[in-house]
Amino acid sequence: MKIALDAMGGDHAPMEIIRGARDAAQELGVHILLVGDQEKIQKELDGDEAGGLISIVHAPEVVGMEEHPVSAIRKKKNSSIVVATQLVKEGVADAVVSAGSTGAQMASSLFILGRISGVDRPAISTLLPTAKGVVVLLDAGANVDCRPKHLKQFAVMGSLYAERVLGLPSPKVGLVNIGAEETKGNELTIASYQMLQKTSINFVGNVEGRDLFLGGSDVAVCDGFVGNVILKSAEGLAMSILGMFKQELGRLEDIIGNERIMHMLGSFKRRMDYAEYGGAPLLGVNGVSVICHGSSRARAIKNALRVAKETVEQGLVPAIKESLENDKGVEE
Amino acid sequence: MKIALDAMGGDHAPMEIIRGARDAAQELGVHILLVGDQEKIQKELDGDEAGGLISIVHAPEVVGMEEHPVSAIRKKKNSSIVVATQLVKEGVADAVVSAGSTGAQMASSLFILGRISGVDRPAISTLLPTAKGVVVLLDAGANVDCRPKHLKQFAVMGSLYAERVLGLPSPKVGLVNIGAEETKGNELTIASYQMLQKTSINFVGNVEGRDLFLGGSDVAVCDGFVGNVILKSAEGLAMSILGMFKQELGRLEDIIGNERIMHMLGSFKRRMDYAEYGGAPLLGVNGVSVICHGSSRARAIKNALRVAKETVEQGLVPAIKESLENDKGVEE
Repeated sequence: MKIALDAMGGDHAPMEIIRGARDAAQELGVHILLVGDQEKIQKELDGDEAGGLISIVHAPEVVGMEEHPVSAIRKKKNSSIVVATQLVKEGVADAVVSAGSTGAQMASSLFILGRISGVDRPAISTLLPTAKGVVVLLDAGANVDCRPKHLKQFAVMGSLYAERVLGLPSPKVGLVNIGAEETKGNELTIASYQMLQKTSINFVGNVEGRDLFLGGSDVAVCDGFVGNVILKSAEGLAMSILGMFKQELGRLEDIIGNERIMHMLGSFKRRMDYAEYGGAPLLGVNGVSVICHGSSRARAIKNALRVAKETVEQGLVPAIKESLENDKGVEE
Repeated sequence: MKIALDAMGGDHAPMEIIRGARDAAQELGVHILLVGDQEKIQKELDGDEAGGLISIVHAPEVVGMEEHPVSAIRKKKNSSIVVATQLVKEGVADAVVSAGSTGAQMASSLFILGRISGVDRPAISTLLPTAKGVVVLLDAGANVDCRPKHLKQFAVMGSLYAERVLGLPSPKVGLVNIGAEETKGNELTIASYQMLQKTSINFVGNVEGRDLFLGGSDVAVCDGFVGNVILKSAEGLAMSILGMFKQELGRLEDIIGNERIMHMLGSFKRRMDYAEYGGAPLLGVNGVSVICHGSSRARAIKNALRVAKETVEQGLVPAIKESLENDKGVEE
């Protein structure tokens, strides 16, 4: 299997990206195509190509975080994200992974790979840690204003992702809402509830913010605005709580010593760390495209490459095609 | 000052409610009117009327959590929430506090006290703990589908609340959004941003979920769906993190002992506990109505009574009237 990795995308590119590629090549045995400025990549690689599992594809341009995604990828045909996505389109690579501009990656995936027929809006599906494990949350930010049929498509795609990639048989799919009863919610969720009941997925009804983090469902569906707010609030709250935890532990310093404290903080941090859970696949595009947090370091990149590998191996894209392509032009 | 307290509302009524009333009477020196079933209240009070600061107003009926709010308060004219709100309307009490059905309290406040002219939709303003202190989040669930003018009114009311009751000079007001730039967001937030810029409040622009919990603003404005999801997600995540914290500390048991661990967990819990921050005033109604979490125990009730007292003392309702009544019939 070959995975195209945008070597120039992210706050810690190319160094951490390349380190992640090397770890993934060794641990997962996948062939990584590092896409970006050949010279810079060569320099970082320093001859270590993980036993021939790493090769370089030259792409002189980079799309910056501040650039307008659509116009940027139209102008910069030789940017790392466009070239990496092109490799998937041409069948040279099986998947593309990037920690660069999310907008640019979404735009190149949409324009180059295209949508799966029956999917109106591709969605970003991210994993959130819960008391019981993880929950697949989608859409995490691709579509800020949605209609019920979009949420229905997200639900089907999220269910298939949880089943195929996370290995959960008949995953419980919940609708993010502000009450348990089907009459609760805003216009979007009340209408979506009715539509979700008619699907063949294991729809368990509304899931409130509280149950979301206590593991109330395996998949949680919402529009991209709500999903992004949940995701970022969780990050912020986790950081703020980590600070409190640090203070509480600080009181024990003379008893258990600073080293022990640092060790505990580290293990706590890892459990809260979204990077642990790897990248977020863009579901609904006609190919495997995995989005990473801009702040991703080697471990996050390696985990995102694992997600990409499993998504390809488990045939998620064909599975989504099969479930949704007959769904075209149904109820708005 | 007299505060009408719904003695029958909440999961732990009437016992915890009455305990909270007694604590508040002693600590805050306010006169509490316990509204509910005279006999039951008498029994719990057991003669201790906190030196005459507690009296009983008989109300034989109760609105249940499962009842439809509007029809329930129309039918049950002698329910504790309706009678308590009536006391404010008649000028017998200065404020009403309840841990009962939020819907029933909102409905009675709206029908009995009425809206402040210039306010289209009253909003629930709740306090969230942040890394730096607290943030006033509104609307926390009263209005699930909003228009820009509603968010503008929430912003003005939230700003006055933070200034008057929390004592923050020129509070920083942020718009809950998924990006920092003014072009980011959904239809509602993009339009609201423009409207908020034209107000005289200290609008600091968009605040992302992340900054929200890191103390990015003193007031955070959003529609009631998003606000409720943020509030409940925070509760769920905090509980799930508390579980992890417990596990980490457990490893120290043989070194520091179980008692010390329990003490640390307790102090951590208190910092995370929304009950600490008391009730959430329903802003925009023509009187002081403070909503408590259904699970409120004595401490939460006492804190809610403090919030009610300060809201009255600081003249929040007249302040909102002054700022918004000239605002009638402006841009949609």
